[in-house]
Amino acid sequence: MLADPSRKYPRADVLSLAERNWPANTLSQAPRWCSTDLRDGNQALVNPMNREQKMRLFERLVQCGFKEIEVAFPAASNTDFTFVRELIEQKHVPEDVWIQVITQSRPDLIERTLAALQGAPRAIVHLYNATAPLFRELVFRQDKAATIALAVRGVTQIRDHCDTHSHTDWVLEYSPETFCFTEPEFALAICTEVIETWQPSDARPLILNLPATVEVNTPNVYADQIEWFVSRLPVTEHVTISVHPHNDRGTGVACAELAMLAGATRVEGCLFGNGERTGNVDLVTLALNLYTQGISPGLDFSGLRELVALVEECNGLPVHPRHPYAGELVFTAFSGSHQDAIRKGFAEQARHPDAPWRIPYLPLDPADVGCDYQAVIRVNSQSGKSGAAWLLEQNHGLQLPRRLQQHFSRRVQEATDITGKELPVAEIWALFRQEYGLTEPARLTLVDYASESGDNGLTLRAKINTNGEHISLQGHGNGLLSAMMDAINHHYGLSLDIVDYHEHTLGQASRSKAVAYLECRHGELSRHGVGIDTDSARAGLQAVINITGAALADQFPR
Amino acid sequence: MLADPSRKYPRADVLSLAERNWPANTLSQAPRWCSTDLRDGNQALVNPMNREQKMRLFERLVQCGFKEIEVAFPAASNTDFTFVRELIEQKHVPEDVWIQVITQSRPDLIERTLAALQGAPRAIVHLYNATAPLFRELVFRQDKAATIALAVRGVTQIRDHCDTHSHTDWVLEYSPETFCFTEPEFALAICTEVIETWQPSDARPLILNLPATVEVNTPNVYADQIEWFVSRLPVTEHVTISVHPHNDRGTGVACAELAMLAGATRVEGCLFGNGERTGNVDLVTLALNLYTQGISPGLDFSGLRELVALVEECNGLPVHPRHPYAGELVFTAFSGSHQDAIRKGFAEQARHPDAPWRIPYLPLDPADVGCDYQAVIRVNSQSGKSGAAWLLEQNHGLQLPRRLQQHFSRRVQEATDITGKELPVAEIWALFRQEYGLTEPARLTLVDYASESGDNGLTLRAKINTNGEHISLQGHGNGLLSAMMDAINHHYGLSLDIVDYHEHTLGQASRSKAVAYLECRHGELSRHGVGIDTDSARAGLQAVINITGAALADQFPR
Repeated sequence: MLADPSRKYPRADVLSLAERNWPANTLSQAPRWCSTDLRDGNQALVNPMNREQKMRLFERLVQCGFKEIEVAFPAASNTDFTFVRELIEQKHVPEDVWIQVITQSRPDLIERTLAALQGAPRAIVHLYNATAPLFRELVFRQDKAATIALAVRGVTQIRDHCDTHSHTDWVLEYSPETFCFTEPEFALAICTEVIETWQPSDARPLILNLPATVEVNTPNVYADQIEWFVSRLPVTEHVTISVHPHNDRGTGVACAELAMLAGATRVEGCLFGNGERTGNVDLVTLALNLYTQGISPGLDFSGLRELVALVEECNGLPVHPRHPYAGELVFTAFSGSHQDAIRKGFAEQARHPDAPWRIPYLPLDPADVGCDYQAVIRVNSQSGKSGAAWLLEQNHGLQLPRRLQQHFSRRVQEATDITGKELPVAEIWALFRQEYGLTEPARLTLVDYASESGDNGLTLRAKINTNGEHISLQGHGNGLLSAMMDAINHHYGLSLDIVDYHEHTLGQASRSKAVAYLECRHGELSRHGVGIDTDSARAGLQAVINITGAALADQFPR
Repeated sequence: MLADPSRKYPRADVLSLAERNWPANTLSQAPRWCSTDLRDGNQALVNPMNREQKMRLFERLVQCGFKEIEVAFPAASNTDFTFVRELIEQKHVPEDVWIQVITQSRPDLIERTLAALQGAPRAIVHLYNATAPLFRELVFRQDKAATIALAVRGVTQIRDHCDTHSHTDWVLEYSPETFCFTEPEFALAICTEVIETWQPSDARPLILNLPATVEVNTPNVYADQIEWFVSRLPVTEHVTISVHPHNDRGTGVACAELAMLAGATRVEGCLFGNGERTGNVDLVTLALNLYTQGISPGLDFSGLRELVALVEECNGLPVHPRHPYAGELVFTAFSGSHQDAIRKGFAEQARHPDAPWRIPYLPLDPADVGCDYQAVIRVNSQSGKSGAAWLLEQNHGLQLPRRLQQHFSRRVQEATDITGKELPVAEIWALFRQEYGLTEPARLTLVDYASESGDNGLTLRAKINTNGEHISLQGHGNGLLSAMMDAINHHYGLSLDIVDYHEHTLGQASRSKAVAYLECRHGELSRHGVGIDTDSARAGLQAVINITGAALADQFPR
């Protein structure tokens, strides 16, 4: 890289507006969408789609709700030509869907393009020619007049064909290529000539598409260009302003959004941002950006996971794990404070299921695009106390008391600090069981018990299985648990003291198990035990026994 | 997805500015960069980096030119704490580099954080607390006054520590979390209190970092928020305005750029946009966006390919093939018209090597980031006549005449239409050799020749090897080639007629081979042949013979 890049990459002149309205606007409705996956997207693939893949993707695009689909560059390849014929002849195009094809402004190419459309009920013919000075000077060596004449000749040829093929509903789309670095006055002049030649009407609408085929400026400059253009266009009736942003500077989505603020009402792009080089603007992101602002995009991505899989297969390209809305890590939080906030958000949501969606760090409800909450919280060394507790609740129904959460999170932290890796839920569950006496086989299990209560409290007799040997205990207390604790302390010579106790059922059926959480003081130490049983009383007693097993293990390791 | 999402995702109130200055601004210098790869990026990984990976990435970040690097959340994990200690104790931090650590505003966490920094020559302590209403109400159940008090207590604790540890140069960074959906007045109020408490000075500067931890609006709204905030800040001396955009709406880069237009002078982010969920803003894209506008970013990404490989290994995540500047397909064009323009651009560049970079569809010279031009043009069924010709020129030195280009491109098109796949350069070369008579073994080869010219033209005697058999020919013409054609026609009973002829050397050394391109009419057909030889005359003769071989093959297939 050059220390001073200013000579090699001189700053281009930028349209300077005295004032602009778009920054004060807000988006309030969806644009008309045009998918160019099968054309711009397809031509950028290492291995373009085969016929069967193109057909599957076409059908999926229709299913998503696309009404305008650029399907091919029929004059450029035989595969493309044949695909258009097949769509038309085999009647794959639903009544409310327009297919679109692109062509350069050359008589032979236009002729071949129109031949491909023979018999189509509806068609958008997308004509483009190079208008930017770089192209005029370097590539085509044409002056402005010749460039305009080329566009007008193309439009005339198409118009004449339409006149004689009136059983097709025709729309013309014209793109000055590349709008974003064409002189604004010249882009306006050539588009004005196109309007003059086409004579847009209700029966023959016109789309003026203003591409940023290469992104060369911050997105506000593109918005300025769009606003400048739209506000000066002599005819606007039956004329739609469309944009076609690419993503060279990583701001394709922003360009589209700001262009919509500036007056564009149609957007061309691809699913997940496929397209030449850095890709076209991603229509999924644009649509879901509207959705999370409460605006219906008119596209449905309910089955987002399946759509990702289909597009990955057709394009031979992955969707990145961090791709907005669609990436596999997008609904996942590893950071402890994020996890804590998300858990509280879900708890609040459960209390007010009809309230607006307000889950911290999750701008979209994963369920809306067919994802579940499984992946929302995952645990590694960067996670705090909430993560593991959330996973135990989601997967095993446990609602850990606060102090147990803290205790267990320290154990998780130690484990992840040692391995340096994510701790999957199965390993978290194993660690939890090991830590709180739920090991199989258990060191000590309750066989049976009997209790008798009177004015002086409760007396408990219990039989315990310890490594196959049954022993009988007896203790006294003001309740079942304290009596058990007394029996244990007495038998083993311990001095465990109950500090905290919680219990809840696992699930809502009457036959559900219960889980008991017990915290004891053992000298200077605090110790936690958990018991699970179909009898809620036994769950508590087993928790006492499980703590005991752990305390004994410390004193007399097996 | 809901048909009407407006109740579930109600539109948030948005700051409404009567006027704004940022849309008229242009970027003219790089911001201060802060890499948070080792903290925000790291905590979002399925498997966080180990110590060795963290150290390698730290050193690479320094090498790229980063002067501020957020290295850890030391109070959150032992790995992080130890890493900071190692950086300091083993003196890994160069003299002009500041390490930064993050902490929540809790006394025990701050204490542990400051303990990690013990002995650091320079340090940025990054303090944050939750200021957004969603967090205040849902997560912390604190009112505004309590939220301000929490920030002030944290700042006070840090300030007191700094006073007693003056051998370290201290900077405080404060983040109201999440700025972008905190009430602007409250964000201003809490930051004003932080300024009051910290008392920024030359020796103790302050960074106010205004994160969009979750992107919730179009990027112009973020810019409005930044401009509103900056223009109302009571103290600006020794205060830097920093931004920390995420990418939930796919507009993280735009948010950073528009925020810079609005007054931010520091940006936090990650290489290639790593970070929680959809990631942080991508600093590589931001830097190269400046570079291609002629602005030195102050970061060096000359070895971009190696950097991609290192980051992919450390993060366990890929960089997408279409990632701006860094993806493997970013400098590649498959479309025919793009390829044609690029070829013309390179030709013009070769004539004016010191002129500004003006290659169509390539906003950045791949060589500036250590990439070559090999991948710029690749050929599939979507490619036009230029692609294959370019590859033959780049890889074999051939400069095909225009009509041969057109002829060969049709053959390439047929081949790619059949396979549906990319045609790699080796296969293009094989197809070319087969098509124009350069097969091995050749059907016919020139053994030797003798010529004699007089007033009546030239007489040629030549010996040809045809499948091991030597035959002698004689012909007459006004030159060597026409005499050879005459001899051939006479011997084989053909009527080939030379239409066009080009020849050039392959390479610039005196011992270079020459290549001859010949076009003949053969009845109604046009036919092309190519010959290559160290003797330029023999190259032409061999081209005649190669055409003949192909013509005979048509008539008498082997």
